[in-house]
Amino acid sequence: MNTHVNVSAPAAGTAPATKADERLMANAIRALTMDAVEAANSGHPGMPMGMADVAAVLFNRFLNVDPAAPDWPDRDRFVLSAGHGSMLLYSVHHLLGYADMDIDQLRNFRQDGFRTAGHPEYGHAAGIETTTGPLGQGIATAVGMALAERMMNARFDDDLVDHHTYVMAGDGCLMEGISHEAADMAGHLKLGRLIVMWDDNGITIDGSTDLSTSTDQAARFAACGWHVTKVDGHDPEAIAQAIAEARQDPRPSLIACRTVIGYGAPNKQGGSGVHGAPLGADEIAAARKELGWPHAAFDIPAEAAALWCAVAERGAEARTAWEGRRKAHPDTAAFDRHMAAPEACRIGKAMAEHRRALLKDRPKVATRKASEMALETLNAAMPNSVGGSADLTGSNNTRSSKMRPVTAEDYSGDYIHYGIREHGMAAAMNGIALHGGLRPYGGTFLAFADYCRPSIRLSALMGLPVTYVMTHDSIGLGEDGPTHQPVEQIASLRAMPNLDVIRPADAVETAEAWELAARSTATPTLMCLSRQNLPTLRDADHDASQNLTALGAYLLRRPEGARDVTLIATGSEVEIALAAADLLEAEGITAAVVSAPCFEAFERQDCRYRRTVLGDAPRIGIEAAVRQGWDRMLDREDAFVGMTGFGASAPAPALYARFGITAENVAKTARELLA
Amino acid sequence: MNTHVNVSAPAAGTAPATKADERLMANAIRALTMDAVEAANSGHPGMPMGMADVAAVLFNRFLNVDPAAPDWPDRDRFVLSAGHGSMLLYSVHHLLGYADMDIDQLRNFRQDGFRTAGHPEYGHAAGIETTTGPLGQGIATAVGMALAERMMNARFDDDLVDHHTYVMAGDGCLMEGISHEAADMAGHLKLGRLIVMWDDNGITIDGSTDLSTSTDQAARFAACGWHVTKVDGHDPEAIAQAIAEARQDPRPSLIACRTVIGYGAPNKQGGSGVHGAPLGADEIAAARKELGWPHAAFDIPAEAAALWCAVAERGAEARTAWEGRRKAHPDTAAFDRHMAAPEACRIGKAMAEHRRALLKDRPKVATRKASEMALETLNAAMPNSVGGSADLTGSNNTRSSKMRPVTAEDYSGDYIHYGIREHGMAAAMNGIALHGGLRPYGGTFLAFADYCRPSIRLSALMGLPVTYVMTHDSIGLGEDGPTHQPVEQIASLRAMPNLDVIRPADAVETAEAWELAARSTATPTLMCLSRQNLPTLRDADHDASQNLTALGAYLLRRPEGARDVTLIATGSEVEIALAAADLLEAEGITAAVVSAPCFEAFERQDCRYRRTVLGDAPRIGIEAAVRQGWDRMLDREDAFVGMTGFGASAPAPALYARFGITAENVAKTARELLA
Repeated sequence: MNTHVNVSAPAAGTAPATKADERLMANAIRALTMDAVEAANSGHPGMPMGMADVAAVLFNRFLNVDPAAPDWPDRDRFVLSAGHGSMLLYSVHHLLGYADMDIDQLRNFRQDGFRTAGHPEYGHAAGIETTTGPLGQGIATAVGMALAERMMNARFDDDLVDHHTYVMAGDGCLMEGISHEAADMAGHLKLGRLIVMWDDNGITIDGSTDLSTSTDQAARFAACGWHVTKVDGHDPEAIAQAIAEARQDPRPSLIACRTVIGYGAPNKQGGSGVHGAPLGADEIAAARKELGWPHAAFDIPAEAAALWCAVAERGAEARTAWEGRRKAHPDTAAFDRHMAAPEACRIGKAMAEHRRALLKDRPKVATRKASEMALETLNAAMPNSVGGSADLTGSNNTRSSKMRPVTAEDYSGDYIHYGIREHGMAAAMNGIALHGGLRPYGGTFLAFADYCRPSIRLSALMGLPVTYVMTHDSIGLGEDGPTHQPVEQIASLRAMPNLDVIRPADAVETAEAWELAARSTATPTLMCLSRQNLPTLRDADHDASQNLTALGAYLLRRPEGARDVTLIATGSEVEIALAAADLLEAEGITAAVVSAPCFEAFERQDCRYRRTVLGDAPRIGIEAAVRQGWDRMLDREDAFVGMTGFGASAPAPALYARFGITAENVAKTARELLA
Repeated sequence: MNTHVNVSAPAAGTAPATKADERLMANAIRALTMDAVEAANSGHPGMPMGMADVAAVLFNRFLNVDPAAPDWPDRDRFVLSAGHGSMLLYSVHHLLGYADMDIDQLRNFRQDGFRTAGHPEYGHAAGIETTTGPLGQGIATAVGMALAERMMNARFDDDLVDHHTYVMAGDGCLMEGISHEAADMAGHLKLGRLIVMWDDNGITIDGSTDLSTSTDQAARFAACGWHVTKVDGHDPEAIAQAIAEARQDPRPSLIACRTVIGYGAPNKQGGSGVHGAPLGADEIAAARKELGWPHAAFDIPAEAAALWCAVAERGAEARTAWEGRRKAHPDTAAFDRHMAAPEACRIGKAMAEHRRALLKDRPKVATRKASEMALETLNAAMPNSVGGSADLTGSNNTRSSKMRPVTAEDYSGDYIHYGIREHGMAAAMNGIALHGGLRPYGGTFLAFADYCRPSIRLSALMGLPVTYVMTHDSIGLGEDGPTHQPVEQIASLRAMPNLDVIRPADAVETAEAWELAARSTATPTLMCLSRQNLPTLRDADHDASQNLTALGAYLLRRPEGARDVTLIATGSEVEIALAAADLLEAEGITAAVVSAPCFEAFERQDCRYRRTVLGDAPRIGIEAAVRQGWDRMLDREDAFVGMTGFGASAPAPALYARFGITAENVAKTARELLA
């Protein structure tokens, strides 16, 4: 049974909406927005005031959320892609009665220590489904949410998973390139439960949209397989009719809502000045008159409060009905297992077994291949792992043997062909992780981490356990040349807070990296994997139950006596460090070799362990990338063997020789350092 | 007079093309491609073989280049956006007789020390108009080229500037988000001389395009204001007709060329396997039979060579005719001045004058405002400066008072409203710089450097003097919160080779930064500018003719005697360092203060200067950003005052206090360091 209310058949207990009611509900949003932005002397009144009518209709007639259970799995999702309009969201949440969004939060909009950040921040307050603000991210994240909804629905059924994803987007969201990736993906996958309401107000910061765009957005989205309608964004019945139609259509929907930015501010509405600045006391007074809103600042009349309260009550009823269905459902245990945190023990056991086999077999494979081998085990142990690649499946080795593609005709698979859309993929993975129930990973070449960096940043900022499988991680990819060879990407990613960058040296470390990624709950993981084959380096008698990558760095070759020099390397360069140590040993120079797959994890170790690993001898860092980021482990007088500029096109061995990233050069550098 | 040849009226001396001729010309491309990829045992035969017929027609009937003068300003531009098909470009250049593209280059495709890199690299060989490979970049860069052509045409006239920009793009280019930004921009600006030939082969690396996309590309581009046609990409007359029509249409054109990927390889064509792997000896033999090409590997029959030679001759004639028009033209001097390297003396003089005024007036302004002040002077001194912003003109302060917008109706302006398209803006700026004649700069928020990073990378890789004006450069932007506050971006950009990142501390350093950016010829500059006001710090009696920012770092406060501690800061934190030095002085601790606006420039100084500046005393780095990148100047025992995670939403002073980036905390840190 579906308890969703819609315009033609309101559920019992919900009074039929009247135009006057919804205008009152909308004006409550407008008033709170004006007042909060004025109090902060900072913020964006234009969008919330312009889209208030759309929000009132959407919440009043369609959207089911329960403020008492903000994480209820089958709630409708609401994404404010135009995140600068945060006061719309905060106003609605206050009016709906979210416990952590009291009037003090609104009075202290954008102030230190309050939940009402300038842009909605996931985790700061209940019901914020995703962090938005960087334009276009919301719509692209919502594609992942809507896809996750269909995938979970296919695994379970309508009784457990059956909701909509609603997005409010602005002109900026639709101008950003990521919107194309999102639109194409949603249209292709026929995500009919994704409904985007575009705030078509004709205004951007610089002025009229005529200054910079003339795209027919309706035609453009139709070309991507969307259902498109246009409505007067201040006509509740038209809005309701459009949303009802969108819900019926099997395609994703774009509703172009023609609005007046800053609606209600009589002297400023319709202009770019109202987008991102307080209205000022005079204009607020004029707006109160214009809107027929005689109430004091932050004051909500009982009638408006009651209308919003009814919305929350309808949501609570829907949630209660769902709880009943959940209890009665035969698949509740499987559903709960999907929704729960990763099963650390089960994963750890499976991966230890896998490592044991690797230590015995000692394969010489590229770490991208080792990753595929790890995924064979991991995906078998995790029922909700979802793979994918931005059209590099065979190169990224992201598809384990039992995976089946997700298609518009059959959402029951677990592998997503994201297409040549790195940015859209990363945002969709954020959406899948935010939706809950599924654990996404996706691949591309490491050089193209740049293409999806804004979404990787949101993974990190929101603390989402998304895994990025980035292969072809250095000049070791060879002939494709400088555009495809990452030299600065590893450093640039290590610079990002709350992102674990792991560059494993062999199949064992790769398996360990996957174990860490799979168990992570609040940190995304980004793996840098080689194109070229690498030998198994870990001692065959190593205890397979111990995950050394978890330490971030460890002594791979520990001399018996004192060391003369410490060689620290990652990934494909650890093999080179070991060979250099051999060369040095022949000359009577004792070198310790440290494998350092994850700098972030090593930083988290206590300083005693760190000192034990790094030692007091002179150090040489070795990585086929720029030095930046290494200096936390190196002193000024220490040395670094790596890259100082962009790469070149040639077979990998020629490039390693050309750029001096060889055992011979490391040994020579050590000799010079010790001289 | 226009000497362009077109299909209906061939120029004198060009034999009318026949279908057989162009098939022969195309097969020469196919054969060279097969042979070179086979020799390299690596590369992408699919695209060059599929698009060979289109290339033959385009060059044979339309495109004017002169291999003897590859940089002739009014040549047509050819951009291979699907850069993996580099053998198409190399084959054509070899056949046209480019001196640096002899057969040895093709025989050594993708080998160390040869010009024939895996993807076309700007500067590696003559006639490579731009570096391509990261998908979508070519089409977006071409938008900048086509825009520059119209802007230069508006400044001069048809006699001096009157050419086309042709692009070959693949499915990947059109799936990438940047293609939307490019398409919207080109359609809006009515760049009718931009003609994109889409290799519509229905294949991506993962398999059929049906796996990941169902967009109606023709409808999509039409929605963006493009002229669109579809042709059989193996029918020369149809191709010629489509190009001729595209040239007549005032809108940018997309020609969907339906092709068979790897056309001519009888057993492999039409499948994804032919995209990126050598065909193998057997298949090459079969293809030779299929194509009626009995010649040995790398052997070109005289008849085919003659046909290609005629194309080069037509180009040479067109170029000679242009030289004649140029000599006779009244604006030749102004044109040459546009095309030449920046006038260092003139710029230096104007900016020294500006600095002199600043040292006297000592304004307390945000460095973004100081940037606008510098641009008032600079834009007056540079006739070919072209500004713009990704819809943040008023926030980035990028438009100086005399600038006029560039519009589809009037290209004579010098300010571009790039719209909410950071990625498209950066790529377009690359295209403008590559075209020649104009010097582009453009603005956005520093946090959104992430959105255009792949194009910034290409600026750096190609060595283009593009200037990025990135404002709101830290938590100092305040209330907009973590999504808008860069903390890791500065480090991530400093990691990029050949990019000068400058973070000026006051109006004087900002003016110095602009002087450096304006005089740069082979390195892009990225400025990090504050939202908040900053006092003038430089001594009033400083010699205005001396640009201290050029040194990268310098002693702003040099104690008379020995120093106890060195405080090193950038941008808005230099003021804090000075205040901390005052606090310490009161306690009898002598602090030197180093302003370090440009790490890259400082690295270029000799070690003696560096030692003089940094001194031997303990050091504290101060920057409202992550520590990464600072360790080149700090030892392990040195300290850093900055950010360790993402920011927050609150007024700037509250954030500085919350994160401990204050004079008091710096002084405390110094005391602890000295204890």
